Amino acid sequence: MQDGTDWSAWPLYNSAETGFRNYWYPTVWAHQVQEKPVPITLAGERVVLIRDGDTVRGLHDRCPHRGVPLSEGRRQFPGTISCAYHGWTFGLKTGKLDAVITDGPDSPICGKLSVATYPVEERLGMLWVYIGEVAAGEEPPPVERDIPAELTENTLVLGGRTEVRKGNWRFAAENGFDEGHAKYLHNTALWRLFKVMPTWNKTRIVEKDGWLVRVQDELHYEAEFPGVGTFTNKRWWKRVPLPDHPDKNGDANPVISAMDIPGFVSVRMPGLLRVAYPKFIHYEWYVPVDADHVRYVQLMVRFETGATALAFKAKYLAAFRWLFHGQFTRQDAWMVNVTDAPPERLYRPDLSINAWRRHVEQLAPVVQPTERRVGH
Amino acid sequence: MQDGTDWSAWPLYNSAETGFRNYWYPTVWAHQVQEKPVPITLAGERVVLIRDGDTVRGLHDRCPHRGVPLSEGRRQFPGTISCAYHGWTFGLKTGKLDAVITDGPDSPICGKLSVATYPVEERLGMLWVYIGEVAAGEEPPPVERDIPAELTENTLVLGGRTEVRKGNWRFAAENGFDEGHAKYLHNTALWRLFKVMPTWNKTRIVEKDGWLVRVQDELHYEAEFPGVGTFTNKRWWKRVPLPDHPDKNGDANPVISAMDIPGFVSVRMPGLLRVAYPKFIHYEWYVPVDADHVRYVQLMVRFETGATALAFKAKYLAAFRWLFHGQFTRQDAWMVNVTDAPPERLYRPDLSINAWRRHVEQLAPVVQPTERRVGH
Amino acid sequence: MQDGTDWSAWPLYNSAETGFRNYWYPTVWAHQVQEKPVPITLAGERVVLIRDGDTVRGLHDRCPHRGVPLSEGRRQFPGTISCAYHGWTFGLKTGKLDAVITDGPDSPICGKLSVATYPVEERLGMLWVYIGEVAAGEEPPPVERDIPAELTENTLVLGGRTEVRKGNWRFAAENGFDEGHAKYLHNTALWRLFKVMPTWNKTRIVEKDGWLVRVQDELHYEAEFPGVGTFTNKRWWKRVPLPDHPDKNGDANPVISAMDIPGFVSVRMPGLLRVAYPKFIHYEWYVPVDADHVRYVQLMVRFETGATALAFKAKYLAAFRWLFHGQFTRQDAWMVNVTDAPPERLYRPDLSINAWRRHVEQLAPVVQPTERRVGH
Repeated sequence: MQDGTDWSAWPLYNSAETGFRNYWYPTVWAHQVQEKPVPITLAGERVVLIRDGDTVRGLHDRCPHRGVPLSEGRRQFPGTISCAYHGWTFGLKTGKLDAVITDGPDSPICGKLSVATYPVEERLGMLWVYIGEVAAGEEPPPVERDIPAELTENTLVLGGRTEVRKGNWRFAAENGFDEGHAKYLHNTALWRLFKVMPTWNKTRIVEKDGWLVRVQDELHYEAEFPGVGTFTNKRWWKRVPLPDHPDKNGDANPVISAMDIPGFVSVRMPGLLRVAYPKFIHYEWYVPVDADHVRYVQLMVRFETGATALAFKAKYLAAFRWLFHGQFTRQDAWMVNVTDAPPERLYRPDLSINAWRRHVEQLAPVVQPTERRVGH
Repeated sequence: MQDGTDWSAWPLYNSAETGFRNYWYPTVWAHQVQEKPVPITLAGERVVLIRDGDTVRGLHDRCPHRGVPLSEGRRQFPGTISCAYHGWTFGLKTGKLDAVITDGPDSPICGKLSVATYPVEERLGMLWVYIGEVAAGEEPPPVERDIPAELTENTLVLGGRTEVRKGNWRFAAENGFDEGHAKYLHNTALWRLFKVMPTWNKTRIVEKDGWLVRVQDELHYEAEFPGVGTFTNKRWWKRVPLPDHPDKNGDANPVISAMDIPGFVSVRMPGLLRVAYPKFIHYEWYVPVDADHVRYVQLMVRFETGATALAFKAKYLAAFRWLFHGQFTRQDAWMVNVTDAPPERLYRPDLSINAWRRHVEQLAPVVQPTERRVGH
Repeated sequence: MQDGTDWSAWPLYNSAETGFRNYWYPTVWAHQVQEKPVPITLAGERVVLIRDGDTVRGLHDRCPHRGVPLSEGRRQFPGTISCAYHGWTFGLKTGKLDAVITDGPDSPICGKLSVATYPVEERLGMLWVYIGEVAAGEEPPPVERDIPAELTENTLVLGGRTEVRKGNWRFAAENGFDEGHAKYLHNTALWRLFKVMPTWNKTRIVEKDGWLVRVQDELHYEAEFPGVGTFTNKRWWKRVPLPDHPDKNGDANPVISAMDIPGFVSVRMPGLLRVAYPKFIHYEWYVPVDADHVRYVQLMVRFETGATALAFKAKYLAAFRWLFHGQFTRQDAWMVNVTDAPPERLYRPDLSINAWRRHVEQLAPVVQPTERRVGH
């Protein structure tokens, strides 16, 4: 295991403090963007989301005139946003300067400039924003490229949270795929009353269809540490899961069982974790905000319809939402916030972290943000 | 219109982040300085204002011994201020070290050093402070040089506010003289229920007696913007002003009518705006504090005496104070705070801003602050 | 007297922004460290204090794995602390990695690394921490080296406070030994109702047994400053002390009278002030925290037993604690916080400060903090 005084072994990863461009990222719920423009920061860029009837548009959140955020502006005319300061009025779809109220209808600057626009799509109830270069006359890749197919090809019911937390997105992603921490850190979470975890494992990382997957060769639910003591994650009121799948109980959801992503925990670019419980899947996106903040988008998905779906939704709102997407993952956020590396000393389970870093290093697009999009 | 990636076209203006020296600036009301020394920051310098009977003195707010602010000190002996730490006692008029309590009457340092003093005058109920070099045995220019003569040569009644707001003084001054913004930004201000403004103008800037004046050649109260919609600033309950003077109603104050500064809005160094309403004049000083703060000194003046004056004072306190010097100009302060330029893209009405920048560039004194006055 | 634009005359002192290593420093009361680990910062290093039965251990407050503070950790097994994140478990005495819960009993990293430990001793009810290099197999100097012998060789009763205040430790130490300020600054403290001080003195500094001592050749309780006025520190209800010792009242405590440190006020490395009142001694440690914070450890000690000791303890808690260790020394802390030097202009009484700087410069150990101990 490498002894890291820095991250120079992964130069692209090392420099990706504010994330990678040329990806679709989930942001806020579609219903959160109504009358009022919603400013967000995504991969270091300031974007304003504005509802235009049934669709939502994304614009660079900076009026080119004097730098005032467009999110402070007014919805004066249909299909436009007007800067609060001088009434510069931009088309939401094109970003073009369509009118300048305080310069009259013959304003010579009108039609001569634009603010950058960002492709926005609505999927799974969320707004997905594409951060990247789209040449004139071209289209961005379809949003489906960056959403697991199982989520768009199946009937499903979901519950979720989206919230910005302190810490860098890479610490959040490493925490997510980290083989080691969950068994110890979350030992005190209420969620673990219902969910048994091992104390330590032997693990391999395999790659399949763009996912990195943690495969466990050995599971140990209890261990005796010489000279120190015994640690157990067993719960007398819970059965220890069968050895071939740590969470298989025999009555797993048939859609999940049929999926071809193996294993319990997997991760893929640009920072999406997938945890396959027998009856539902938990997804977690680590969306880069700026160097010190990361947006956690957490979805819990069940592939059911009718009464089963309704029951799951009720259970989510009543319990899972605060037990799992609240208390449990806030323990992660606590650690992400106080992690301070490099320097670091890695140990055996960190093969998962190193595999992730190598994976990113191979796939990362070498793209620099353009000057005109970067806010001040 | 220039496309500004930076302000290198106006090098003096560009470097005047904390304002210009060799001017008198209005600061706080005279009645605000009583027993307790009052510390202010002016053009980046820390000044303490101390009342000495009928006059107020200004001293550099830093004891030269160990750097403790004199504004923390004690008024131990008449005509002096004593540093709270060791009783170094400075004459308020001269700044000279007159006694050192804890070193005895034969203290050898006594009389050997001084803190810098700042000329202070009281005019219009305010304390005016001169920031600049005054050679030994010389006097600063008279304060009247930096106050419009109409304010010292006429009988008048006034109401006003002085307060420090966020943002750089240059954004505040540009906002003040800006031809474009008021018609749109203040469209929502209550003050505008009583005051009709055009939607867009054609404007020239002329210079007269040291003032830059905005002269309007065309006024448009309503406009149709192709493909976007109609914008109007008309109010059905208010008459649109006569074309030769946007605010002339026929019964203007004779003193104002006779003044030889033409036009509605004018500006002069070092950052004074004048808005001539038919019956009163509104003045606004943008006094530099530090790079991120500006003191707004707002005065509303009527050239009347007796009952008319009293009625105006009552109206000011009851309405104008919060409608105009409050809500209306706080909209300006909001924009000044979020303006983030350069880079900037200027448009036709910004000829007013560019004229102001050129004006400053020509008149600005090339003076660097002396080392000993600059606080830490 | 030197006119200081900088402190380059004392290069070691100048660079000792976070204090000196290779000393024992008092920190918190022993009773303040119970179940919960207590993080402190000492001379710029992050240290966690952890109770292990009757003793308290000090460890570098950073898990070497991913930089998470060990003070966030859990007391899982006797004699150890486990990092909250992955259960890396360190022996409190050795700092050695004794077990890694999430890597199983055969973890290859186990026993291969350590966190730095800090010697901790309990004296006078406080925890003393040694910041410095201790080579393998060697011991740090005995804590008694850095505690005045009079405090370990006599029976005594004490009261005290330990608290972190704003400001650099050097300003605090200079303020402590400063000949000049107390007579003026504390003129308004309630403590001074009972304690008469001169207005100005003639003073020499002598060195004795590692202490710098202020010796007064002349005392003046009142003075007339020409053209300014009269200043007096006399109190009509208090007798002015005898001239040979400013605080001797004839009935001094015999232990204090017999001590061979002369004078009322003395100071020694690494920043300990001693003020010998006739019946008790006040000690004040200026413990460096970081560049902007200093820990004041104040002890008031009486060398008595039985009823006299009890009465003193009661008096301390009822009065001295807030009068002297509260209001009086908070006036010092106020000045320490606003002192802003260099540049500075020194005066006659500052011979005490300059003597202290020279003293430090001669004795200061030239030691750089090691990389691995410095937190991030």
